Amino acid sequence: MTRWKLILEYDGAPFVGWQRQTNGRSVQVALERAVYRFTQEEAVVYGAGRTDSGVHALGQVAHVDITKGVDANTVRDAINFHLKPDPISVLSAESISDDFDARFSATRRLYLYRILARRPPPAVDAGRVWHVTRDLDVGAMHAAAQVLVGYHDFTSFRAKDCQSASPVKTLNRLDVRQVGQEIHIDAVAPSFLHHQVRNFAGTLKLVGEGKWRREDVAWALDARDRGAAGPTAPAAGLFLVKVSYDSGY
Amino acid sequence: MTRWKLILEYDGAPFVGWQRQTNGRSVQVALERAVYRFTQEEAVVYGAGRTDSGVHALGQVAHVDITKGVDANTVRDAINFHLKPDPISVLSAESISDDFDARFSATRRLYLYRILARRPPPAVDAGRVWHVTRDLDVGAMHAAAQVLVGYHDFTSFRAKDCQSASPVKTLNRLDVRQVGQEIHIDAVAPSFLHHQVRNFAGTLKLVGEGKWRREDVAWALDARDRGAAGPTAPAAGLFLVKVSYDSGY
Repeated sequence: MTRWKLILEYDGAPFVGWQRQTNGRSVQVALERAVYRFTQEEAVVYGAGRTDSGVHALGQVAHVDITKGVDANTVRDAINFHLKPDPISVLSAESISDDFDARFSATRRLYLYRILARRPPPAVDAGRVWHVTRDLDVGAMHAAAQVLVGYHDFTSFRAKDCQSASPVKTLNRLDVRQVGQEIHIDAVAPSFLHHQVRNFAGTLKLVGEGKWRREDVAWALDARDRGAAGPTAPAAGLFLVKVSYDSGY
Repeated sequence: MTRWKLILEYDGAPFVGWQRQTNGRSVQVALERAVYRFTQEEAVVYGAGRTDSGVHALGQVAHVDITKGVDANTVRDAINFHLKPDPISVLSAESISDDFDARFSATRRLYLYRILARRPPPAVDAGRVWHVTRDLDVGAMHAAAQVLVGYHDFTSFRAKDCQSASPVKTLNRLDVRQVGQEIHIDAVAPSFLHHQVRNFAGTLKLVGEGKWRREDVAWALDARDRGAAGPTAPAAGLFLVKVSYDSGY
């Protein structure tokens, strides 16, 4: 048996999310079927981040145990072959120690949230950005985002159904910047609560519109009440970009 | 009657191309239907470039004559409203002189061709790049591209069905550069022959793979024979980025 670390890219639009569900096709099940077609083994594929329906990945990490003896390029190429035509791609496969766990060994995650702030709707990037129909003040959004960086109780930015043991988390970085026509929010933390980045985006949009000030974001954080922060931004704008592991993996 | 200049973005994947066809849905007809729903006028929408099936636009230009008296923002927003859910977006509408013709007044066009050179297939950008499974030498591609710049008989890079009066054209710029994971080819000319940019891309890929040298591209150009140049690259990688008009428009 070999444990494989997979780095994955996917378009979240056609899926119910990462996780196996009764109501539709998940990324996890699509991968498990591809592994089965290739190995005839019923292996479970474990992901680092349980991305929601419509959320994309540029660098999701997963692990899977395969008994069949194969090399890394074959694992990558054979899974990709059997994934067709699903928009999921194995970017790399690497054999790794048996104590590696894609989710629990992860030490840092980077998410990107993309906003397209213009009156006309997106065409080429439809489903890959949050379309906001008015100009946003990127500088004000970035300044307000700094209120959220650090070690805090993030109850105000946590989905009701969040299964995390504690709402207290460290947020390492929350940067808002203009990238061409788009506004990009980069969020880095050891781990995130359910909907945390989308709730950050929905709140920072209020700042960008001038409806909220930096102080309102601080107040929302202090309130420890989901109702005190802004709305949840759409899944389509969110990308899991990278999962990091401390030396050894 | 007012003539309107429209700047358009679209995802070419679901369309048979810009031009009205008997075998499916075209961008032109989708726009004409949206104009009709908004004005009850059966207007023809004329485009600057007749993009093929699957070819995208970030800045196609079109013109249309509308009798109904409306302002520019209303033209843009009403057409966008009636285009839903088609992936076509009117980025701007501007009233313009009656002698403006989107196609014949155009003085310069910029196309972008995107190549993703890596073994794993694209997931998030599927349908928006040409997937090439091996590394390409971008420097060699750019050097070879310079052979094509200038005033030449481009018969070797012209589709059989091309309706242009002459194969002799000026190519102002053909730049090949690495942009993140992708290779981008920028092509600028007053006008292009049918499939010209895709035939450039298919030929430069041979150079990137090391199968062709710069001299082979020069030889292919001199041959004035479509069979002498490389294959036609897929439509999915091609974007009409910008159409320019001399001062006055």
